[in-house]
Amino acid sequence: MNELTFIEALRGIATDPAARGLNDDCAVLELGTETLILTHDVMVSGVHFLADADPADVAWKLVAVNLSDLASKGAQPLGVMLGFMLNQAAWNQRFIEGLSVALAAFNLPLLGGDTVSAGRDATASYGITAIGRATSLPVPSRSGAKPGDALLVTGPIGDAYAGFELVKAGASAPADLVQAYLRPRPLVEVGQRLAPHVHAMMDVSDGLLLDASRIATASGLGLEIDLGAVPFSPSCGARHLPHHEMRAAMAHIADTAEVSWAQQAITWGDDYQLLFAAPLDASLPVDAWPVGRFVAGAGLSLSFQGSKLPLPASLGFQHR
Amino acid sequence: MNELTFIEALRGIATDPAARGLNDDCAVLELGTETLILTHDVMVSGVHFLADADPADVAWKLVAVNLSDLASKGAQPLGVMLGFMLNQAAWNQRFIEGLSVALAAFNLPLLGGDTVSAGRDATASYGITAIGRATSLPVPSRSGAKPGDALLVTGPIGDAYAGFELVKAGASAPADLVQAYLRPRPLVEVGQRLAPHVHAMMDVSDGLLLDASRIATASGLGLEIDLGAVPFSPSCGARHLPHHEMRAAMAHIADTAEVSWAQQAITWGDDYQLLFAAPLDASLPVDAWPVGRFVAGAGLSLSFQGSKLPLPASLGFQHR
Repeated sequence: MNELTFIEALRGIATDPAARGLNDDCAVLELGTETLILTHDVMVSGVHFLADADPADVAWKLVAVNLSDLASKGAQPLGVMLGFMLNQAAWNQRFIEGLSVALAAFNLPLLGGDTVSAGRDATASYGITAIGRATSLPVPSRSGAKPGDALLVTGPIGDAYAGFELVKAGASAPADLVQAYLRPRPLVEVGQRLAPHVHAMMDVSDGLLLDASRIATASGLGLEIDLGAVPFSPSCGARHLPHHEMRAAMAHIADTAEVSWAQQAITWGDDYQLLFAAPLDASLPVDAWPVGRFVAGAGLSLSFQGSKLPLPASLGFQHR
Repeated sequence: MNELTFIEALRGIATDPAARGLNDDCAVLELGTETLILTHDVMVSGVHFLADADPADVAWKLVAVNLSDLASKGAQPLGVMLGFMLNQAAWNQRFIEGLSVALAAFNLPLLGGDTVSAGRDATASYGITAIGRATSLPVPSRSGAKPGDALLVTGPIGDAYAGFELVKAGASAPADLVQAYLRPRPLVEVGQRLAPHVHAMMDVSDGLLLDASRIATASGLGLEIDLGAVPFSPSCGARHLPHHEMRAAMAHIADTAEVSWAQQAITWGDDYQLLFAAPLDASLPVDAWPVGRFVAGAGLSLSFQGSKLPLPASLGFQHR
């Protein structure tokens, strides 16, 4: 029983409507006059972060990825539960410093959790459950896109990818690219403002292509994405990363020399932008970039300057 | 930064009243006209279960220990979120079978969660967050015991300990003792019935002595426990385990030859009975055994047949 068959088996158990068929970023549970929004994400050393990562960054990211899931449902966060596996003393200390900074930055209560001791050789893993409440109903799902809807994204794609590549290569990198990778900022307020206007919404955690295809599949539609319409920062797109000062606004890639990099960026993930379906003529309360269009049928297609591009072998990060 | 200083540091962050100072079994979060009750427990291979345990039992226990926390607050369970680290195929298969059986037995929805892949040598760890709603207010805490209150327990102590010892020794053991260890049954309905009548309540997960001392400390009181009043099954107390048919009702230990075993049992844990403080003359809706008395002051004392017994070096299981 591998990951896919395991999750299929879980779906057979998770038949309550609140589970949304395990096809959404969050569970959505009605309770009295409120609607709870719940998500749980786990991060494992060597899989979701490098073993020598700063534990303060790990703590921040663990909080942020959970909040980003809440953001994609337009939720108001209420608090988090933490599952923590004790590590070396200095590691624990740095983790709690990062946790404290993240919770303060997001004005988020720590409600409880569990601290466990495992041996010194144990694989470190950390989990957070984030609890929120719906701010608008119905709570956006992945499955509500309609034929003719635009696919839009709230901001730059590829910053985290660029930051990761630079850090991995030991290169000096603009601080904001490194922060995009290490300390993403979930778009909680943007999600709340968008929720009443969208037909479907999720966050970009596993790569724009993969996550976009999830909305299309859940909605029973095909999707055409225009690579030239995806907002990359000039510094990322042209790989002229030190030219940070050039980056006044997001720009689209301009020539085929940049296509290869852009194709990597849209499959890498960790962008934590919001990705959503809305009518072409929707009047939106926040800036967003149209990057594709839903069509009747099935499947994903990718183009650049009117020419179809082959889909990459992997659309994104499949194992989180 | 070890476990104690880590948890102290967490307390410095968890200042929201819903966190109850991280001194309770659950977080208690008011939301509209409802009160949410939340708990999160992690189980690690080699720490909380034997590496060669049946994964179906691991799944059951993971669900049960979380539900037992909800039970101790009188909560009505609403569902669980699961954090699962993929293991070998056969392991995953058995886990999901046990999960399915447990959720069906407790009529509990699986709401969502996260499935992660780590390497084949990774230390397996599993987490569940259980969500419930309060059925009576105020939600029982650990800190409400009053001087003169009785300490009561809802059922037998030591069954799980006996089951574990027998399984570990490779001995044949009565099925109900083995099940008490492998597949505890959280007292959800009992907790709901008791909640309006108690001054303080928790479940016995880390050992009767340690958990009782937690109520006393949280309430700012001393506590006197009478070992002879603790309900052990005769088969456990006398270690005549095969004499299962003798076990018509719970009985107290009768002579000093049994004291040593009983002292082990009350520090071992995994009983998942409910332990609570109530007035001596309280009229309770369920059977419960008075085992001690809260007094002004501080500290725990243990006696048997009027003679004081020394406290064991460790009151219970400290690292969960």
